[in-house]
Amino acid sequence: MPADDALVVGVDFGTLSARAVVVRVRDGAELGTAVADYPHGVVDQALRGRPLPPDWALQVPADYIEAMSRSVREAMTGLDAAAVIGIATDFTACTMVPTNDQGTPLCELPDFADEPHAYVKLWKHHAAQPQADRINDLARVRGEKWLPRYGGLISSEWEFAKGLQILEEAPRVYAAMRHFVELADWIVWQLTGNYVRNACTAGYKGIYQDGGYPGPDFLRELNPGFERFVADKLDHPLGQLGDKAGELTAQAAEWTGLPEGIAVAVGNVDAHVTAPAARAVEPGQMVAIMGTSTCHVMNGTTLTEVPGMCGVVDGGIVPGLWGYEAGQSGVGDIFAWFVRTCVPAEYHEQAKAKGISVHEHLTELAARQRIGEHGLVALDWHSGNRSVLVDHELSGVIVGQTLATTPEEMYRALLEATAFGTRVIIDTFIDAGVPVRELIVAGGLIKNELLMQIYADVVNLPLSVIGSPQGPALGSAIHAAVAAGAYPDIHAAARAMGSVRRAAYRPIEANVEAYQEMFEEYQTLHDYFGRGNELMHRLRHRRRVQKG
Amino acid sequence: MPADDALVVGVDFGTLSARAVVVRVRDGAELGTAVADYPHGVVDQALRGRPLPPDWALQVPADYIEAMSRSVREAMTGLDAAAVIGIATDFTACTMVPTNDQGTPLCELPDFADEPHAYVKLWKHHAAQPQADRINDLARVRGEKWLPRYGGLISSEWEFAKGLQILEEAPRVYAAMRHFVELADWIVWQLTGNYVRNACTAGYKGIYQDGGYPGPDFLRELNPGFERFVADKLDHPLGQLGDKAGELTAQAAEWTGLPEGIAVAVGNVDAHVTAPAARAVEPGQMVAIMGTSTCHVMNGTTLTEVPGMCGVVDGGIVPGLWGYEAGQSGVGDIFAWFVRTCVPAEYHEQAKAKGISVHEHLTELAARQRIGEHGLVALDWHSGNRSVLVDHELSGVIVGQTLATTPEEMYRALLEATAFGTRVIIDTFIDAGVPVRELIVAGGLIKNELLMQIYADVVNLPLSVIGSPQGPALGSAIHAAVAAGAYPDIHAAARAMGSVRRAAYRPIEANVEAYQEMFEEYQTLHDYFGRGNELMHRLRHRRRVQKG
Repeated sequence: MPADDALVVGVDFGTLSARAVVVRVRDGAELGTAVADYPHGVVDQALRGRPLPPDWALQVPADYIEAMSRSVREAMTGLDAAAVIGIATDFTACTMVPTNDQGTPLCELPDFADEPHAYVKLWKHHAAQPQADRINDLARVRGEKWLPRYGGLISSEWEFAKGLQILEEAPRVYAAMRHFVELADWIVWQLTGNYVRNACTAGYKGIYQDGGYPGPDFLRELNPGFERFVADKLDHPLGQLGDKAGELTAQAAEWTGLPEGIAVAVGNVDAHVTAPAARAVEPGQMVAIMGTSTCHVMNGTTLTEVPGMCGVVDGGIVPGLWGYEAGQSGVGDIFAWFVRTCVPAEYHEQAKAKGISVHEHLTELAARQRIGEHGLVALDWHSGNRSVLVDHELSGVIVGQTLATTPEEMYRALLEATAFGTRVIIDTFIDAGVPVRELIVAGGLIKNELLMQIYADVVNLPLSVIGSPQGPALGSAIHAAVAAGAYPDIHAAARAMGSVRRAAYRPIEANVEAYQEMFEEYQTLHDYFGRGNELMHRLRHRRRVQKG
Repeated sequence: MPADDALVVGVDFGTLSARAVVVRVRDGAELGTAVADYPHGVVDQALRGRPLPPDWALQVPADYIEAMSRSVREAMTGLDAAAVIGIATDFTACTMVPTNDQGTPLCELPDFADEPHAYVKLWKHHAAQPQADRINDLARVRGEKWLPRYGGLISSEWEFAKGLQILEEAPRVYAAMRHFVELADWIVWQLTGNYVRNACTAGYKGIYQDGGYPGPDFLRELNPGFERFVADKLDHPLGQLGDKAGELTAQAAEWTGLPEGIAVAVGNVDAHVTAPAARAVEPGQMVAIMGTSTCHVMNGTTLTEVPGMCGVVDGGIVPGLWGYEAGQSGVGDIFAWFVRTCVPAEYHEQAKAKGISVHEHLTELAARQRIGEHGLVALDWHSGNRSVLVDHELSGVIVGQTLATTPEEMYRALLEATAFGTRVIIDTFIDAGVPVRELIVAGGLIKNELLMQIYADVVNLPLSVIGSPQGPALGSAIHAAVAAGAYPDIHAAARAMGSVRRAAYRPIEANVEAYQEMFEEYQTLHDYFGRGNELMHRLRHRRRVQKG
């Protein structure tokens, strides 16, 4: 066992910044935290003075090292570096970089400094959609057995679409690329000198299933030059989550101010790493990380193909269990759109006078309404629907407006719509034979108590909320403790170091009944617009054609 | 033939004011106009210090005389009263007052001055809904043959519901009432000393069909005390529109400053009287009076029961033709609700900076969009649907919102939705065998050129707009000229004195095609929500129950 005052460091690499947290191993106490922005942020308009096409989103790898160095050093302020026994990291995904055999990003070689394809492609780089469409079409035609593991849809954000785009748009970069690396693994490579491919992204983003990847026949049919993509660029020994990837190098010790030689854990993903931080790693505990969108992760004991899930991966959340992932593509961003686009000035003024945000003001007003009093029902598809319909061409709906309908009524209808969307996901898991016993919520939206109670009432499950405001970084710190040998596995470390307000919201019986009725209305509209006809596809098609 | 400089006066009694216009008989030139408010306006909160129940709306009869006197005298300023050969009036409907045998409103008798039921019940007095429900239920059960003439629904605004409410809530008033009089006729009674019941309101509001009213059996089944309602209170000889009801009395000449003995026309209704003002009295010319709601009136040569119309009346618009009426219960008020409830501050600021209204600003922005570019389709049922679904429990819908959807896009979708609503009405008339060849628009919304072009493109008919900003008062003046014998009939007078910009908007072929596709989406939603299921009724029921 480590010393009573042993510490670990977790670093969460987000879209715009890195957040470090220093945690006491024995009880999970968070003793220091700091955030550092990436100097270049997201590069989506122009690279070195040259404009980028639409839907591109790049980053600069050196930014990660700099932000890590600054955040870790600041988080350690006043703490004893010698007490740190391990470090772990989590990253956005799927965020990819092409490297040479040393792990050097090609964009750092003088020959490729002006080549956009040589840079980091952030998760939200969506310019590989044509490649993703071809991957999906071909997989359907060939009946590839991995396709149902991803709800029938491989995303343009993922490894194969991004890799194929490089081959087809920048063959010189493709040829020079020795490894196509998840940033979750690249950062660990920088810390340890070892390239270890983590089981989580390999499975969820890299289509690694049943011990292998999509085969050379499939790849050749996509593009003859892509036949050896797996063999030459992607395949690499896997590491399990919580395992030690290596030890901190002298160079990395210099960057971070931490002791050389401490344990460094296998890389991980921001959503998945949050589960142990919320003590939610047992089968049936569904974690919803609720922010602009919602990511649902849950362990199960068996492999089941749940319709519309984002993926199911062996050891995708903790080793030895099947990790399930599902998602709602729009949640907080729908509320933000509403506040930005649909709310008159007086609400902004009233919020200002009360010293609260417009969201808080609308929530206070909405909390006074009885369930169903607004006479509305909405569909939360403003950003499409990931689970369970897997259809990004869907769009939002609101039904029931009268001349007396108020903004706070519409706001509440949208809150409820996202809860109904979560309920559809949970019902689908249960119907497929994967039990869901508890809903644990993490992410920025846990602050909204009305929203939390609505979710508890709609899903009719005890709703727990994570105890820490920095779930992913705490989750990484837990992995660092496991990698350092302080706990036998993630389960034990989560129990000791995780933090949750168990059943902070309980379903209220009368509300459950009222919402059951309204959920049936939602389900009717869900099936009508999502499965019953092509109206929304025609609307979207017309929009695209007419926008020109 | 009258002298070259002969004049007529038209007076339009609206909800809040009377508008007088002085018109030259030979060419319809409008030489003077003035508006005067009713001193008591709409009495809907309290009467003589005592609060009124919800949904009540009363007026004070003396206000009409005063407003008429002031507006006519002001409109005549600088004109020669001796040149005036006739006067005619139109009124809101169904607006009713109980009187004694002299036509004196019961509220003017000291005994009834504190009795709300003794006052004028304005068209928008909706407190007789329980009575209307019973009238409709009983008529359906008994298979009354007049019911389909009103699209299957008698309104709570109309004569029988208002009469039954008096019987049941104020039997003393009911007993003292010798006549239950349309204000359209009461004002003519005041001007001439003669009570003449006009064919228009008798038909549309009084269920006068095929030479008679609902029979005593029907009335007794509603309430035994109501058996002789028609015989004792309602029935009275009819006058045809454009006929002379009598001559201006000395008393009325004193009120108005007009010559005693000039012709006074039979009373009329604001919407119906507008048709000749827009030179739209031939079969197939549909007039849409577009304001907060839209009223459609059109002549036909035969009696046809068009599904969902408001009424079909023999001589209801001009003698000798069947007058059809249909309606959209929400139009301008939906746009007003949107601007009030759904538009952020920056749009108000931009409009202010440009010196235009928010409606004009949103219209300018919406006009830049290509058809269908917004990716939206809406249902215009925020105030229910009169024609053709006859269902006031329906509500609004908007489908297709994304995180990029803007207020001007939603605004345009609502403009289009009301055009689609008009298209449904026109299609229903045509399908029923009543031809519609031209759409003529009157009312406040003719100012919006984008809206007019959208209507022309959606209905694919030449769209004409009335030339006068005061359609009803001009229409009344035309009736005055006919009553005075200056023209043989309304058709001839309309040709000489009416005013229209014929085919001011023509359908644009490419737009017609684009809107045909979008109309089909509207029709799909219209049938799904309006005929396919009870979802909106459940939403409305829940709203009512929960509001408590």
